[in-house]
Amino acid sequence: MPSISKRGIDMPSSPIRKLVPIADDAKERGINVYHLNIGQPDILTPKVAIDAIKNLDRDILEYSHSAGLIEYREKLVKYYAKFDIDVKKDEIMVTTGGSEAFMFAFFCCFNPGDEIIIPEPFYANYSGFATAMGINIKPITSKFEEGFALPPIEEFEKLITSKTKGIFICNPNNPTGYLYSEEELNQLREIVLKHDLYLLSDEVYREFCYDDYTHISALNLEGLDDNVVLIDSVSKRYSECGIRVGALVSRNKQVIDAAMKYAQARLSPPLLGQIAACASLDASEEYTQTVYNEYLGRRNVLVEGLNKIPGVKSMVPKGAFYTMAKLPVEDSDHFCAWILGEFSYENQTVMMAPGSGFYSSRYLGKDEVRIAYVLNEEDLKKALIVIEKALEVYPGRKQ
Amino acid sequence: MPSISKRGIDMPSSPIRKLVPIADDAKERGINVYHLNIGQPDILTPKVAIDAIKNLDRDILEYSHSAGLIEYREKLVKYYAKFDIDVKKDEIMVTTGGSEAFMFAFFCCFNPGDEIIIPEPFYANYSGFATAMGINIKPITSKFEEGFALPPIEEFEKLITSKTKGIFICNPNNPTGYLYSEEELNQLREIVLKHDLYLLSDEVYREFCYDDYTHISALNLEGLDDNVVLIDSVSKRYSECGIRVGALVSRNKQVIDAAMKYAQARLSPPLLGQIAACASLDASEEYTQTVYNEYLGRRNVLVEGLNKIPGVKSMVPKGAFYTMAKLPVEDSDHFCAWILGEFSYENQTVMMAPGSGFYSSRYLGKDEVRIAYVLNEEDLKKALIVIEKALEVYPGRKQ
Repeated sequence: MPSISKRGIDMPSSPIRKLVPIADDAKERGINVYHLNIGQPDILTPKVAIDAIKNLDRDILEYSHSAGLIEYREKLVKYYAKFDIDVKKDEIMVTTGGSEAFMFAFFCCFNPGDEIIIPEPFYANYSGFATAMGINIKPITSKFEEGFALPPIEEFEKLITSKTKGIFICNPNNPTGYLYSEEELNQLREIVLKHDLYLLSDEVYREFCYDDYTHISALNLEGLDDNVVLIDSVSKRYSECGIRVGALVSRNKQVIDAAMKYAQARLSPPLLGQIAACASLDASEEYTQTVYNEYLGRRNVLVEGLNKIPGVKSMVPKGAFYTMAKLPVEDSDHFCAWILGEFSYENQTVMMAPGSGFYSSRYLGKDEVRIAYVLNEEDLKKALIVIEKALEVYPGRKQ
Repeated sequence: MPSISKRGIDMPSSPIRKLVPIADDAKERGINVYHLNIGQPDILTPKVAIDAIKNLDRDILEYSHSAGLIEYREKLVKYYAKFDIDVKKDEIMVTTGGSEAFMFAFFCCFNPGDEIIIPEPFYANYSGFATAMGINIKPITSKFEEGFALPPIEEFEKLITSKTKGIFICNPNNPTGYLYSEEELNQLREIVLKHDLYLLSDEVYREFCYDDYTHISALNLEGLDDNVVLIDSVSKRYSECGIRVGALVSRNKQVIDAAMKYAQARLSPPLLGQIAACASLDASEEYTQTVYNEYLGRRNVLVEGLNKIPGVKSMVPKGAFYTMAKLPVEDSDHFCAWILGEFSYENQTVMMAPGSGFYSSRYLGKDEVRIAYVLNEEDLKKALIVIEKALEVYPGRKQ
């Protein structure tokens, strides 16, 4: 029997993978599982997008341009302009979800053995693709106590070697909900220029910034035209995760040219998804505002509720729809499995993502969980009660 | 300015990339360009697929299962059974086109530095992904004079080293249209078993086998359950290249488990495409038969026409919808550029894919072109006249 590749073995599993069969078992026992583990919103996709699909006027579902439908890219130029991001059609490459955008960025910017610095906790799948491509992630821990702010820039300096080729940020942040300030972004700007690094910026939650905080795009940092590669996706913006449409945006023509070769090798991004994404850009202000208000309300219910549970703490996320909450437990991997497998309250339980999966440094995040507020307020309240009741009886509670 | 990665630079361009601007120029001059270069059929997508999209009954376009919609995989089990291929639902992973299937296969089966043997000429994009992943392709030339049959198995033996981890075939073959015989497949079977190799088999043209030739799937070779990884796609089968739905199929559970980690890292294959692909499996026998007859007719017109042009030779392809034709030219890269840029006949010209792009060995394929018979018979006849007239006056004609 031929052996699996080393990278096939080393590829990390999703942080919640082990929990899936336990959740399935719970459901089979008739228990209602509140899914706070996933980034799949229950918000409706814009009607204009669904209608565009239903009114499909094609009889051949052919390849689109490898960089994406021209019409869609032209509309994206106007979309970015609304956020004062000035990019041209040829600086935008439509990808199969945000995942493919960071895959292309990894392929084009980094060689096997290169190092990239990422503030942790970070979106677990970055690590999967980096492993697949032989790129070494050097994490710098952002701390719960500091609201997951950018770690001191001296910490970045300390990690930079001749192998360091880039810094990767997610802003607003999944999993922490943190939003980088202008001052923090300027610190990153300086270090990137000083060491001639790439700055990869995942900004898929751009629209979800609360409490008058403003999002600043890495593309608007001065003098970084050759350094910044933006990762984008319509998945969360329009609640259409399944259509797999994202984008890689850069003013560095060499990056776009190299990415184009990868794009051509995989032929084209999904046609039907692009039709839906293109129509979504016409979603009404009302749609956008309603979705925004909904998440804001959910955030408030969740964070207030979490902080009322004895021993539980959550910062107030400034953006996205996640929080990394601290629980009074020794091992949140065990707690998340236990609550699903051995606990229920009024026939309900909760699925959460254990914090450890979002840290690259070992032993970190053991008392944290990522909670996505993608359920309606009523369900969130019920889930909070379940968490509270569970912690009252959990045998692994911190002493 | 940070530098592009070595793999970004080394990534080969598509064989026709250089020709695209020349074709665009021709069109701007008002010249009608017959596209014989691409695998984008003009055949209609099955109406059941279009209707499934138009009748979409969802208001959230959410992620599907990372391995693909369960309903679709269950129907695929029945589809494969029609070809006497016995696979289970969990041995099928739905992918974003065939491209993602061979990407996952490359990631899971091969390490950087590993070698795979591929009979050339081969589908140019294999080479792109192999480069991206640090896998070295060792080509073995299959010869025009032998109808592009499998090269002698001794040639494979000679190339096998401790680094050799797999053999990759495409059957029926793009670009040659060759279909491997039972005898040839059994030779491959023996060498794969002897050296404990993976056998990757791209069988996306399964349905297109002509003249009573029968397709034998690598999955039906005895004793190779742990060795065979099948690459599949609905793109050409149902003329729906743009939906990006393919599959990786293997009875090797370790391969599927490793591929699942990659599948989870990119979250899910395209939902809308899967809905179309799932419905396509219900396309009528009449649809399948009509499409088949259409390609058969086109093949006959093309091959007969090519062989009537002085100095031009084409084998009769047994499957798929391509032929590698020999032209009386010194350099088909030059000829393909010249016919687009400097020649026209009655305001028409032809775009073809130069042969060299399908060979990994240098200097081969210089008098060959790949022609896709994806135009209707009338247009094919007109394109043949253009080629004939062009060769009469082409200054680089072989002496």
